[in-house]
Amino acid sequence: MNHDFNELLHDVAKQISNNYMESDLLIGKNNKSLPTRTTIIEILEDTRRLLFPGYFCKDQVTAASASYFTGQLIATIHQKLVKQIALALAYSHPDNVTSSDKDIIDKAEQISCEFFKELPKVQQMLLLDAQAGYDGDPAASNREQIIFSYPGFYATFVYRIAHELYKADVPFIPRMMTEHAHSKTGIDINAGATIGKYFFMDHGTGIVVGETTIIGDYVKLYQGVTLGALSTRGGQHLAGVKRHPTIGNRVTIYSNATVLGGETVIGEDSVIGGGAFITSSISPKTRVSVTPPELAIKNDSGAELSATEYIYEI
Amino acid sequence: MNHDFNELLHDVAKQISNNYMESDLLIGKNNKSLPTRTTIIEILEDTRRLLFPGYFCKDQVTAASASYFTGQLIATIHQKLVKQIALALAYSHPDNVTSSDKDIIDKAEQISCEFFKELPKVQQMLLLDAQAGYDGDPAASNREQIIFSYPGFYATFVYRIAHELYKADVPFIPRMMTEHAHSKTGIDINAGATIGKYFFMDHGTGIVVGETTIIGDYVKLYQGVTLGALSTRGGQHLAGVKRHPTIGNRVTIYSNATVLGGETVIGEDSVIGGGAFITSSISPKTRVSVTPPELAIKNDSGAELSATEYIYEI
Amino acid sequence: MNHDFNELLHDVAKQISNNYMESDLLIGKNNKSLPTRTTIIEILEDTRRLLFPGYFCKDQVTAASASYFTGQLIATIHQKLVKQIALALAYSHPDNVTSSDKDIIDKAEQISCEFFKELPKVQQMLLLDAQAGYDGDPAASNREQIIFSYPGFYATFVYRIAHELYKADVPFIPRMMTEHAHSKTGIDINAGATIGKYFFMDHGTGIVVGETTIIGDYVKLYQGVTLGALSTRGGQHLAGVKRHPTIGNRVTIYSNATVLGGETVIGEDSVIGGGAFITSSISPKTRVSVTPPELAIKNDSGAELSATEYIYEI
Repeated sequence: MNHDFNELLHDVAKQISNNYMESDLLIGKNNKSLPTRTTIIEILEDTRRLLFPGYFCKDQVTAASASYFTGQLIATIHQKLVKQIALALAYSHPDNVTSSDKDIIDKAEQISCEFFKELPKVQQMLLLDAQAGYDGDPAASNREQIIFSYPGFYATFVYRIAHELYKADVPFIPRMMTEHAHSKTGIDINAGATIGKYFFMDHGTGIVVGETTIIGDYVKLYQGVTLGALSTRGGQHLAGVKRHPTIGNRVTIYSNATVLGGETVIGEDSVIGGGAFITSSISPKTRVSVTPPELAIKNDSGAELSATEYIYEI
Repeated sequence: MNHDFNELLHDVAKQISNNYMESDLLIGKNNKSLPTRTTIIEILEDTRRLLFPGYFCKDQVTAASASYFTGQLIATIHQKLVKQIALALAYSHPDNVTSSDKDIIDKAEQISCEFFKELPKVQQMLLLDAQAGYDGDPAASNREQIIFSYPGFYATFVYRIAHELYKADVPFIPRMMTEHAHSKTGIDINAGATIGKYFFMDHGTGIVVGETTIIGDYVKLYQGVTLGALSTRGGQHLAGVKRHPTIGNRVTIYSNATVLGGETVIGEDSVIGGGAFITSSISPKTRVSVTPPELAIKNDSGAELSATEYIYEI
Repeated sequence: MNHDFNELLHDVAKQISNNYMESDLLIGKNNKSLPTRTTIIEILEDTRRLLFPGYFCKDQVTAASASYFTGQLIATIHQKLVKQIALALAYSHPDNVTSSDKDIIDKAEQISCEFFKELPKVQQMLLLDAQAGYDGDPAASNREQIIFSYPGFYATFVYRIAHELYKADVPFIPRMMTEHAHSKTGIDINAGATIGKYFFMDHGTGIVVGETTIIGDYVKLYQGVTLGALSTRGGQHLAGVKRHPTIGNRVTIYSNATVLGGETVIGEDSVIGGGAFITSSISPKTRVSVTPPELAIKNDSGAELSATEYIYEI
């Protein structure tokens, strides 16, 4: 590298350092450290191994080795989780506390223990989710395949884990978890959403479930479904307000349908057809299908053909 | 960690172990092992190196080193593949067989060899797919870029590999492969689909191609296209039934169009416009465009403007 | 492995080697090497650490260590980038040059230095993008979360880096970068697009921004938005032509809207509603909403209900 380049790169280094000094956002507020993304992902993967040892472990877990395996892994996850929660709590704390302060550590241990207390129930919920996947998809050969390969199941797993930490008001970490799942699956479930049991998302890519969504039991969503807000132009003024819909028990929503608004309720046992755009409530036991926009059908010479009838039932 | 926490974590470990005992789904049926996800991904990456050594190898493969390179890599892939197929066959076998039983190993070797026999043809198919990408996308500077960077090409590669194993009735592995591609590309092609030569998907995110779809030659799909089933409420009763459409030769389907149903045929040389929702057959050489839903256009003061005419041709 | 299998695999190796000889596309043109994908990703990750050390570094960077840190990291990135640019330039060069030829290295160093000269400005642009994310999303608790977790922010970061190399006519690398982001986020921004400051994409999955798109300042896009071409049936004949729309300052485009065509201009301060399909220009300060396709609403007994009124405002 010649002299001029050296000087230029030196100058760039100085400018970038100066940018660090001008915004507290670049190197972290008050020299506090943020949680570590790679460790958060490790916690997710460790927890998946703990709940489903038959699928994601190198060595086989048997009935005989199970209690040793679970004890060991829980201790490991707890240790990592406490440290990460402590980092998140300290960073968000208005005062100049650190992640090794006793109060912070105590709170983090408390939260981690509460998390583990819920974990056996989460595991059972996930078994129901796997069953829902198998029952709902003729392309699934068995329930193992759901646990092993289905992105909708993975996103549900991560959501159920992240939701426990969201309920405990842990900053940063729940969103880091769900965005990791979003990256791997194309499914974006906010950790704040409430989702009942026996939940299944088929294909999944493009699904968005907003922060204040409430979803009942036995609900099935297809790819591209948005459960969103009517408008977010209010920005931060809308934080905390219920902006996303409520979906009743046993509702199915087909691909690319959009349901918007905090007061929108899809009644129990209703079926929403593909591509529907819904911004007001739907009664229970209702089947909504879209009258598809008219299709212009032309043959090769450009002549308009008589329209084929497009009647379909979801 | 204080005493109470220790006790709680111990208790959680016991509950999770108990869950293992209550469902054979968590630690694996009859102590049988499932295939190993990381090895399946290695097989995909090794195969990609074998077929396209110029792109995904650390060391350069030359004309002189080619036969050594291919021989070596084929032996490696074969070894891994036989072991994984054996695990999959043993796990799905109704009897208490293991993946090292001679019958299972023999069957696995047979399948792997059949797979390799098809591989040179698959490689030639993929060259045509790369050509299709270059011919179809004005943003592509050369064919190398397609092989190197295009998610549609990667998903097609994985599909063509997985499809060979699907045809041989290998359990688990084909879906693990296509879901890996789904995770990396947002493109969900079921390994059971039949796809002709010179296939191109542009952008790709959100594309879904169902298990019983049949796609001809020279077909082009854009992002968000669903080739799906009319309803899957039949669940497992529909397994094996043709539920997904047939797409003729030289058909182009633009972004976010949906074509549903096992009896739906898009005739040869037809063009389906963006956003179309199609559930019955379309004749050959037909251009289908959507008359877009009316747009309500208001100016700043809220007054309705005369509607602009939205005529477009795909 | 028995004798027959050995012979078959040997035969396959020969066929695959023969395929290498028949197409220069498989082992690389004229024995030239292509850029290394893993190094390109390292360059992206190193650059992200350089610009946002508080988030993606293992060790904490402080005001005191900043200039050492930046100097060191810039030297590392420069070294890798020069080598990769040289590979790309040599591969695309019509003559038989190599990536270690003096002319090629000089050009690569020049380009890398120009890239670094722009980097402090890119860093400041990204701070504005983080602010846009926070201001625009009520689910964001703070700006740190945007930088840390939001896929739209990551895709914007990669785009802004790749765009600098695109402007310098570097082959291969800009697209490798943006396709890496596409894989991780489901957001496909072509490195050739022009995007103003304070840019925010919420959720993001499925967004496509074509090569010749021009986006002004303060623009907000939602998941599934396509800024695309009217038709690409012209294939390579359309290379270089403006095929994608122009989006004015302060425009918001809601989820799954599609805007197509190189002559289509969305005027400043306009708002495009979810699901709109637009192929001609929209005046400034206009609110476009879709009159949603009629919904067929049936109760359980199949009787048609009177249609609920679906009026909504974006």
